[in-house]
Amino acid sequence: MTKIHPTILVVNDDGITAPGIKCLMEAMQELGRVVVVAPDSPQSGMGHAITVGKPLRFDKVDIYEGIEMYSCSGTPVDCVKLAVNKVFKGRKPDLCVSGINHGLNNSINVLYSGTMSAAVEGAIESIPSIGFSLDDYTLQADFSHSIKYVKEIAAQVLKNGLPAGTLLNVNFPATPHIKGIKISRQANAKWAEEFDERMDPHKRPYYWLTGVFQLNDGGEDTDVWALENGYVSVVPVQFDMTAHHAIPLLHSWTFNV
Amino acid sequence: MTKIHPTILVVNDDGITAPGIKCLMEAMQELGRVVVVAPDSPQSGMGHAITVGKPLRFDKVDIYEGIEMYSCSGTPVDCVKLAVNKVFKGRKPDLCVSGINHGLNNSINVLYSGTMSAAVEGAIESIPSIGFSLDDYTLQADFSHSIKYVKEIAAQVLKNGLPAGTLLNVNFPATPHIKGIKISRQANAKWAEEFDERMDPHKRPYYWLTGVFQLNDGGEDTDVWALENGYVSVVPVQFDMTAHHAIPLLHSWTFNV
Repeated sequence: MTKIHPTILVVNDDGITAPGIKCLMEAMQELGRVVVVAPDSPQSGMGHAITVGKPLRFDKVDIYEGIEMYSCSGTPVDCVKLAVNKVFKGRKPDLCVSGINHGLNNSINVLYSGTMSAAVEGAIESIPSIGFSLDDYTLQADFSHSIKYVKEIAAQVLKNGLPAGTLLNVNFPATPHIKGIKISRQANAKWAEEFDERMDPHKRPYYWLTGVFQLNDGGEDTDVWALENGYVSVVPVQFDMTAHHAIPLLHSWTFNV
Repeated sequence: MTKIHPTILVVNDDGITAPGIKCLMEAMQELGRVVVVAPDSPQSGMGHAITVGKPLRFDKVDIYEGIEMYSCSGTPVDCVKLAVNKVFKGRKPDLCVSGINHGLNNSINVLYSGTMSAAVEGAIESIPSIGFSLDDYTLQADFSHSIKYVKEIAAQVLKNGLPAGTLLNVNFPATPHIKGIKISRQANAKWAEEFDERMDPHKRPYYWLTGVFQLNDGGEDTDVWALENGYVSVVPVQFDMTAHHAIPLLHSWTFNV
């Protein structure tokens, strides 16, 4: 059953001043007490990185009136670890929401995304966790059509919980004409990289990572299909990366050692 | 069937001058043509991070005689992307090996590890991939007892391939008395964080991330059990993070939106 006034941790990877996190914290204020812990600079593409080789800064900040907020010099996953350890001090929040990301985190992007990795870290901490992302990379992204879904999905997770070891990856199409929610699986896809080579003023080359999304999956049960057809995709995600189905095959191998 | 003279990409996260990658490249030279693409500085804990907000340096270097080597300013995953795109130019290597990592990457560490994420990226590129790690964080780590296992496991993967979408996570105990190989699953565990708070000369606090490994899994089929009992653990890993078992549950939810 939903607690009367749950505590909700809000994180992201676009940084504490991104419009997406403002929308998310405002939506969550209607559901409970909001605490924001977010990176002090954009951390897109940081995946599940943590900061081990250098120390972290972690400061209480006063950006939006009436909201308890902390900024962190580290990664999105660092933010969740600091929230659990320094803010909540062992009294876990009832929900961890990450985003709303400026840009999709469907399919293989779940691995590269700091937004999703923060939600994964929430789940590792046994906090019911959800990552939200919108198909619009720009700072001008219009999150308004996604808000009612954000609130409803968060409310359902607060009410029902999630199975141990799982979290939700929720992606929104950019269209204002959303058809509904599709429970989906991660589409099989990859990025075909192209490195844009340039020359610096000292005649040394440098490279920008760019790429083209390559879908290798014709299924109509994927997050890619849902989004292309105007639905919100909701994928249950797990952090047990064991390929359990491959264990019998490996048992059949003979190691000559 | 094993190619007569396969091409083997060697990557890591401890950096191109780490002793672990030298051991790995030497072992792989007995199996085929070795190409090394590794970070120019330590990248431990970088997970599946990629470099999107700044450009990359990527240079051919001459560190060990007779080995084609490239150093990259980015993350372990960047290294694999650059290798595929700039070195192999679409003609994929026959094997991608990552490590040997100074320190274990078993259990939940698979998510935080740059070593394992490089191997995951190899698998995303449809290259048979293996990550190797040793239970010794020091630069003086003794990899000698693991070498015959590294060669045999790599040879088996070259011979048999791996199922689509999977790779291997191989961890070695520090003991010289290795009992054999155990095919295992990722143990359920987490890090209980503790942030070591210090004061800088300007009286501003900063924090070092530290933690204690917390095992929540009594299974004798896990990588933690195998390592504690003197075995090499071999876990098949997949990058489909969908919690397929949770899909029916989510279908049973009613979204009021």
